[in-house]
Amino acid sequence: MSGAPLSPDELEARLRAIGAERYHNLHPFHKLLHGGRLTRGQIQAWALNRYYYQSRIPIKDAYVMARLPTAALRRAWRSRLVDHDGEADGTGGIERWLKLAEGVGLDRAYVESTDGILPTTRFAVDAYVNFARDRSPLEAVASSLTEMFSPGIIAERVQGMLANYDFITKDTLAYFTPRLTQAPRDVNFALAYVKQEARNREQQEAVLAALRFKCDVLWSQLDGLYLAYVDPAMVPPGAFVPDADASARPARAGAER
Amino acid sequence: MSGAPLSPDELEARLRAIGAERYHNLHPFHKLLHGGRLTRGQIQAWALNRYYYQSRIPIKDAYVMARLPTAALRRAWRSRLVDHDGEADGTGGIERWLKLAEGVGLDRAYVESTDGILPTTRFAVDAYVNFARDRSPLEAVASSLTEMFSPGIIAERVQGMLANYDFITKDTLAYFTPRLTQAPRDVNFALAYVKQEARNREQQEAVLAALRFKCDVLWSQLDGLYLAYVDPAMVPPGAFVPDADASARPARAGAER
Repeated sequence: MSGAPLSPDELEARLRAIGAERYHNLHPFHKLLHGGRLTRGQIQAWALNRYYYQSRIPIKDAYVMARLPTAALRRAWRSRLVDHDGEADGTGGIERWLKLAEGVGLDRAYVESTDGILPTTRFAVDAYVNFARDRSPLEAVASSLTEMFSPGIIAERVQGMLANYDFITKDTLAYFTPRLTQAPRDVNFALAYVKQEARNREQQEAVLAALRFKCDVLWSQLDGLYLAYVDPAMVPPGAFVPDADASARPARAGAER
Repeated sequence: MSGAPLSPDELEARLRAIGAERYHNLHPFHKLLHGGRLTRGQIQAWALNRYYYQSRIPIKDAYVMARLPTAALRRAWRSRLVDHDGEADGTGGIERWLKLAEGVGLDRAYVESTDGILPTTRFAVDAYVNFARDRSPLEAVASSLTEMFSPGIIAERVQGMLANYDFITKDTLAYFTPRLTQAPRDVNFALAYVKQEARNREQQEAVLAALRFKCDVLWSQLDGLYLAYVDPAMVPPGAFVPDADASARPARAGAER
């Protein structure tokens, strides 16, 4: 890849264009989720599979930290580990995701076992962890930049889920509240880092490719959920099968309540 | 995992039971493929994506060889590299797969670029390569044992494709002919190896898990193809889109010929 270097602002504009084309807010599964079109069983499948993603994020971040060359950089990145792993037992993002999973009716130990997740989920998430471990620190940092687009999807998801599912409460979705402040803080750091460090065109193209890769990681997870649990609802051998009593679509004010 | 060790024959029986439950001959995409129910464009998508799998197999096998402790074991495994990479330019399994891809109307350079493959394909195949690199040699060898089940699927695929698609010729499918003798030879070695080396129950369970993992790798690839190109035909951003002229289902003796 050759050509004149992009200005930092041009680089940022191209990063944002990737989000507009490929971020998973465009995926049909996201639309069904926040639009109130999923059954409790389908939401369980989403929570169960996404737990695996949540649980690997601090491992990914530890690999990124291992590659960052200065104490200042590693310190800035360390806040992500604090966010996800917490300061004590029972705190942090992973714990809050487990509460979300329990809130939609899943057994905590089953979720933590990751036994029932889709192979597609495992392969996509592991690809992300390996990317952080194996690629350059610049690419590893750039792959986190999907967080540029997350406040919008979180707002849509939380508002839609609270409005449309009577078994979803604010407490269940408590995971997302701190993310609305954590993600922009993380983005400020990571975006400034790539704008400063990606100086030549080759590095800039690697940054853009890293963000496309990460969008694929998120997209592939929703593809897996869509195929297995929405249409044509082909659950792979060994993966989670919702209980019959979680498969009815809960009416907003219906007899099922 | 504890318990009494299985006898070597019990271990083999459990390996075969995994195939009966999870091998990708059970996947709806395979049934559509050999049953003559796919369009040329859908078959192109299959050939394009599977090229990535084919192209990574010798890399996987090189990792396995790097882990095998004796010259005799590595030599036995080396025949796999010869099979796939060939003895000279223009020979070997990867080359034959490229001919298959060209035979169904794809551009060779586009296939080799892997630009249009599904993220799901890339993540699943990379998971397999990483498994061979990172797990024990016993698990790496065991993960190859899906070849126990491959003569059946190959026979079904070749007979069905020749019978049902007029744009498929014996030459196009030449990839599969040597596989019918190579796979059983490879299985004889790998199966004898795991039956001998997996002595305690923990090792035997690891062998069984490795084969389940590999079945997931194959299954996830067909899941990705099914979602993107069959039902509901949601092609992820950036992936291959068949030409309009490849999307019609070719009639056996129709006007399209």
